[in-house]
Amino acid sequence: MEKRLLLYLFIGCTLVANLEEFVAAKVRHYKFEVEYIYWSPDCEERMMIGINGRFPGPTIRAKAGDTIVVELRNSLPTEGVVIHWHGIKQLGTPWADGTASISQCAVNPDETFVYRFQVDKAGTYFYHGHYGMQRAAGLYGSLIVDTADGEEEPFHYDGELSLLLSDWWHESVHVQMLGLASIPFRWVGEPQAILINGRGQYNCSLAAHLTGETSSCKITNNQCAPVVLQVRPNKTYRLRIASTTSLSALNLAIANHNMTVVEADGNYVEPVTVNDMDIYSGESYSVIIKTDQNSSLNHWISIGIRGRLPKTQNALAILNYHPNSPSKLPSYKPPVTPQWNDYTHSKEFTYKILAMHGTQAPPANSDRRIALLNTQNKIDGYIKWSINNISLVLPSTPYLGSMRFNLKNAFDTEKPPENFSEHYDVMRPPINPNSTKGSSVYKLKFNSTIDVVLQNTNALTGNVSEIHPWHLHGHDFWVLGHGDGKFRKNDVSKFNLRNPPLRNTVVIFPYGWTAIRFVANNPGVWAFHCHIEPHLHMGMGIILAEGIELISKIPNEALACGITGQVLMNNKRH
Amino acid sequence: MEKRLLLYLFIGCTLVANLEEFVAAKVRHYKFEVEYIYWSPDCEERMMIGINGRFPGPTIRAKAGDTIVVELRNSLPTEGVVIHWHGIKQLGTPWADGTASISQCAVNPDETFVYRFQVDKAGTYFYHGHYGMQRAAGLYGSLIVDTADGEEEPFHYDGELSLLLSDWWHESVHVQMLGLASIPFRWVGEPQAILINGRGQYNCSLAAHLTGETSSCKITNNQCAPVVLQVRPNKTYRLRIASTTSLSALNLAIANHNMTVVEADGNYVEPVTVNDMDIYSGESYSVIIKTDQNSSLNHWISIGIRGRLPKTQNALAILNYHPNSPSKLPSYKPPVTPQWNDYTHSKEFTYKILAMHGTQAPPANSDRRIALLNTQNKIDGYIKWSINNISLVLPSTPYLGSMRFNLKNAFDTEKPPENFSEHYDVMRPPINPNSTKGSSVYKLKFNSTIDVVLQNTNALTGNVSEIHPWHLHGHDFWVLGHGDGKFRKNDVSKFNLRNPPLRNTVVIFPYGWTAIRFVANNPGVWAFHCHIEPHLHMGMGIILAEGIELISKIPNEALACGITGQVLMNNKRH
Repeated sequence: MEKRLLLYLFIGCTLVANLEEFVAAKVRHYKFEVEYIYWSPDCEERMMIGINGRFPGPTIRAKAGDTIVVELRNSLPTEGVVIHWHGIKQLGTPWADGTASISQCAVNPDETFVYRFQVDKAGTYFYHGHYGMQRAAGLYGSLIVDTADGEEEPFHYDGELSLLLSDWWHESVHVQMLGLASIPFRWVGEPQAILINGRGQYNCSLAAHLTGETSSCKITNNQCAPVVLQVRPNKTYRLRIASTTSLSALNLAIANHNMTVVEADGNYVEPVTVNDMDIYSGESYSVIIKTDQNSSLNHWISIGIRGRLPKTQNALAILNYHPNSPSKLPSYKPPVTPQWNDYTHSKEFTYKILAMHGTQAPPANSDRRIALLNTQNKIDGYIKWSINNISLVLPSTPYLGSMRFNLKNAFDTEKPPENFSEHYDVMRPPINPNSTKGSSVYKLKFNSTIDVVLQNTNALTGNVSEIHPWHLHGHDFWVLGHGDGKFRKNDVSKFNLRNPPLRNTVVIFPYGWTAIRFVANNPGVWAFHCHIEPHLHMGMGIILAEGIELISKIPNEALACGITGQVLMNNKRH
Repeated sequence: MEKRLLLYLFIGCTLVANLEEFVAAKVRHYKFEVEYIYWSPDCEERMMIGINGRFPGPTIRAKAGDTIVVELRNSLPTEGVVIHWHGIKQLGTPWADGTASISQCAVNPDETFVYRFQVDKAGTYFYHGHYGMQRAAGLYGSLIVDTADGEEEPFHYDGELSLLLSDWWHESVHVQMLGLASIPFRWVGEPQAILINGRGQYNCSLAAHLTGETSSCKITNNQCAPVVLQVRPNKTYRLRIASTTSLSALNLAIANHNMTVVEADGNYVEPVTVNDMDIYSGESYSVIIKTDQNSSLNHWISIGIRGRLPKTQNALAILNYHPNSPSKLPSYKPPVTPQWNDYTHSKEFTYKILAMHGTQAPPANSDRRIALLNTQNKIDGYIKWSINNISLVLPSTPYLGSMRFNLKNAFDTEKPPENFSEHYDVMRPPINPNSTKGSSVYKLKFNSTIDVVLQNTNALTGNVSEIHPWHLHGHDFWVLGHGDGKFRKNDVSKFNLRNPPLRNTVVIFPYGWTAIRFVANNPGVWAFHCHIEPHLHMGMGIILAEGIELISKIPNEALACGITGQVLMNNKRH
């Protein structure tokens, strides 16, 4: 009798638990049709890649633990397509990471691929194309994950606002890709506009009447209308900010309002209050703002370019205090974002971002340290970016399939270099700029702890070293440290193991280094690359793989190309 | 002993026969790398699709009976590619016809597809992209087949010249395709230039100093230098002319020289001498010219547009009599090509083209007659072209594989209509312009004789009826007749069964009809479509299939997409 009671209790509890899970975790369905569209994101009409006839793509909104299902239909006439869910770890679904040549075959025109994955963690994310330079063509949108039912954010807010930042060129990405792969090299140049939620204004300023420096904007199209964030006075707002720029590092300032950073890349950070903030491509933040300023005015939000001599107008949006008219422009000049090359200011901000108290600490030691020298090089006269002198060329057969099935000749199988010459002078252009192409993989022992030191250098031109925001797929990592100049062995002793921020994207500053740590606990093949799209296109990335033998159930649809397609078809007679 | 002798004789003869075949028929290897290139075909630089870094693609030259092997590497970053070998029947190799969605899966970026096919018949051919509108992006070149060793052409010439004609737009084909598939509809408009062997001059005329009407050309780039055909006086030349225009119907005239047409679409025709000649997209001709004119001068070759109100300068080339300087422009005005809408002139030329005496005659009767009404329509507000009220939408799984393996759901399986209402008024816009999309197939009994009557109509706008050059894959056909207005049953009695020309492309004139006959003797799936690229993109074509059960050995590479890819992979565990 006692036994039976226990059994009933056990069954009852299990049912309750299952029921709770059933109630809490939803499957959220989306249909995305990817197609060319005419659009005027900066008041100049061009062809873009849109989703469901619009730009940017629809916002995906879910709760932690939910399953997202996106039926992606490719309605481009001749181009393949994939979508990467930036910041989502794809635990157990490495084939849904949406990276062409890495996690799946590109989806052919007129075909549909179903992405099905769990969003395990609340935060501010986004999605974007990860094939050729389709992100820069406009293939992106927001992905917001709220806390699971019954869970709470560790900060309070009355309302939420969202800014998805990007940059935009009038030249098509097909031509941009050609220019990057040409002799002579043709750089994409500075963007024609910075876009806020897909809207910008080319070659003009909303505040021209106040600054007198630039021409005023004629907004002829709702697609390029100024972004207005509507707020009520004396409230607290969470402002989500994500950057999917192709190139630009950005700085954002809200006139008369400071911002308290509380989240970075889907991880809570120790609240830190700033007047302006940097956002690099691939990063996301949440900041808390208080609408406690002069409520008879609207206020400027200004976004400027960092790290490159800007030729692009600052983007402006309007913080619209109720009940002011949304079309009432602020009567004062917009805030001036910092000088593009004020790296001291940038470092100060970056170094302030630290994990919220209680965040999981990194393992005390790593099992392996990989040092990655970032250099600009030449291969047969073509300008490239290389990592330890290998410029990444993605194979036509995605790694996930070819590694899972141990196929030969799918990619370079030699072990890529883990280090670089200790005599390399990071402060000068490469003495021998000749580099090599490669597609080799850093194979990581499953569950091992990996340190990576990203080392920046001088580019091909003297006195030039650029910012590179590095993004890791499939994992968050702890940012253990940054430094100027060349990384030295004793820099390890200065690693922050106490409260390093967890992120998926981190910047290396000009002539500097950045060290990260992560646990290779997610079976799959994962890109780690500079998130500047032309830089990745020029080879600036590496491929990591772990736990391949633990992967099963890769859908056929992800494998039907290249050598996997051929091998898997071969046993059938026809 | 006698038996043994016979055996030796037999073996000996077999060896000789094989040896002869070995000597005569060669395998000719080509490597084509398809990539984006910067090019200035009309002195304005744009991105094009080139082959091996150049535009147009390399000329393939072979002898009848040879096997052509083209290793096609797709080096486009995100687009698939195929190449169609226009005019080559692909007997026994239907998977090498190079039609995406029909004969094969598009070749993915970074992959290589090997086309291997026999060229069975001497003639003037060409090749071009057959996916999206990649032909209009520059993906084309010449394919010339000489007579087999020991065989002779039925006409004499001392030398050979070649003109590959095309038209060119400054707008990318990606944008062109988008415009055609948009509401409101955006037509591609008239071309910026007519190209001769890939060269033209935008918005200027080489003869401006003589005509005073247009601005003179500044040739800043060898890529747009005038085409010069070098000849010696008092010789006989074969001039091969092929048109791979995206849109334009053309007329060609050589000042002071008449031309004797001897070949059309790879078939000999009864020699006919003309002062100027029409060439529609998809057609090829050989003409004989005699250099018996004033040899102290060079002479103009002029190419103008027919059938559409031209907004494009005539293209000019120079017939350069030795020893005049190639750069010496003729001192007189170029010949004026006929008025664009002088259809009487066009019909006169077309009706004169008749089979050379001794050409195989058509079967006296047909087994089936298919009447195809060509109409401009609307589907959900999109402007389309339809055939018997079905606008062709190609499926993502190529027909050849899905039909060979009897796969379900790959395309519309209902029987497409063979006829149209006898009450349809071809002289007026459609009363009900609403049309339907479809992908159904006209299944033809193997070895049956098929008649097709192509019926032109008024487009959506009143008093507009356009020229459509229809091209049939996999076959030549006999052109049995043309007529004005609606085809009537008793028009059959006027069919020319005596000396109808054999062709692979034939025009329907405005408001007219054209009747053809062919034998369905080539196992495969074959497109039959308007060769105007925007018209095909808007649905103007049908699919024919015959002898599917006789097809074997389709290479896996042609099948690794869509439902064939999935089905053929499914039996493998992974």
